[in-house]
Amino acid sequence: MPHVQITMLQGRSTEQKRRAAKRITEVLQEELKVSPEKLTITFVEVPRDSYARSGALISDREPPT
Amino acid sequence: MPHVQITMLQGRSTEQKRRAAKRITEVLQEELKVSPEKLTITFVEVPRDSYARSGALISDREPPT
Amino acid sequence: MPHVQITMLQGRSTEQKRRAAKRITEVLQEELKVSPEKLTITFVEVPRDSYARSGALISDREPPT
Amino acid sequence: MPHVQITMLQGRSTEQKRRAAKRITEVLQEELKVSPEKLTITFVEVPRDSYARSGALISDREPPT
Amino acid sequence: MPHVQITMLQGRSTEQKRRAAKRITEVLQEELKVSPEKLTITFVEVPRDSYARSGALISDREPPT
Amino acid sequence: MPHVQITMLQGRSTEQKRRAAKRITEVLQEELKVSPEKLTITFVEVPRDSYARSGALISDREPPT
Repeated sequence: MPHVQITMLQGRSTEQKRRAAKRITEVLQEELKVSPEKLTITFVEVPRDSYARSGALISDREPPT
Repeated sequence: MPHVQITMLQGRSTEQKRRAAKRITEVLQEELKVSPEKLTITFVEVPRDSYARSGALISDREPPT
Repeated sequence: MPHVQITMLQGRSTEQKRRAAKRITEVLQEELKVSPEKLTITFVEVPRDSYARSGALISDREPPT
Repeated sequence: MPHVQITMLQGRSTEQKRRAAKRITEVLQEELKVSPEKLTITFVEVPRDSYARSGALISDREPPT
Repeated sequence: MPHVQITMLQGRSTEQKRRAAKRITEVLQEELKVSPEKLTITFVEVPRDSYARSGALISDREPPT
Repeated sequence: MPHVQITMLQGRSTEQKRRAAKRITEVLQEELKVSPEKLTITFVEVPRDSYARSGALISDREPPT
């Protein structure tokens, strides 16, 4: 029954999200006894100047990859 | 006083969001005794490869509409 | 396909949540063409000293009802 | 860098959350190339009358387990 | 250890987000005794027709600034 | 117009939340030109076994303070 919101930087590929969603669903099915068809996952993707750590935007902290 | 976050697929029109926001506000005013001016609603819209159900991305599961 | 998170003060009854959930589902089914069985709603309920408006906690602003 | 919010029904044990958190971290490290020490996960646990599907509260739909 | 999600209208500059992130981190460090390196902030920015107050979309209520 | 959700461990006092809410509102008023009466803040407080970093629950990582 969980809803999973994953907030992260933009830039991952569809294939990366496909594999992450598949495997997280397996983990929650096994560990939390969730029916897969009741589990939804959203990726909320934000640009590098909309994410901060230690008080600094990622766009100011790390070179683009 | 509630804040409502609606996470959904991209692609709804402004008119659809206008009507949904108006009616949800009416529902919460009537059922939860919320003052409308204190109620905020956000639509967080994600692409079809950022939403998964049953472990599969929507872009892999359903044809575009 | 939406997931709806309603963040609000504690204190509503089960009956209030029951009616709000039923009616919001109807609104989103009609306005956004969502299949009801794909729509999940969570109420995240916080105490009066965990919600602020205009820079002041609700517990400091308004008498309990 | 992701933050993961898992909204679910109350009632899972600490051991279930421990194992889920460990394995989700491994998945995101492998699939999204996230540094584990930058990944945070929160479980937001709500009672059975604060979660609805298909317009009905879980407390009205399913017997307690 | 907090994660802060700030949901707001699109249109702020990188400099505005930079300064807001820096100062919110200082506030939480001082008031909540949070280690800055454990504090993450995301800005979730939505268009003017995805934010409603008093039952009306911002795009219907206020002229663009 | 922002809504701010601060997800953090349980245990902060009302006075800590009071001061944090007041000062964050001042910051966003000054930096993002937000009207204070349009700004809402919620603290979503979770127990130590519902928050993980580096794949481990806080309750397994750090002694209670």
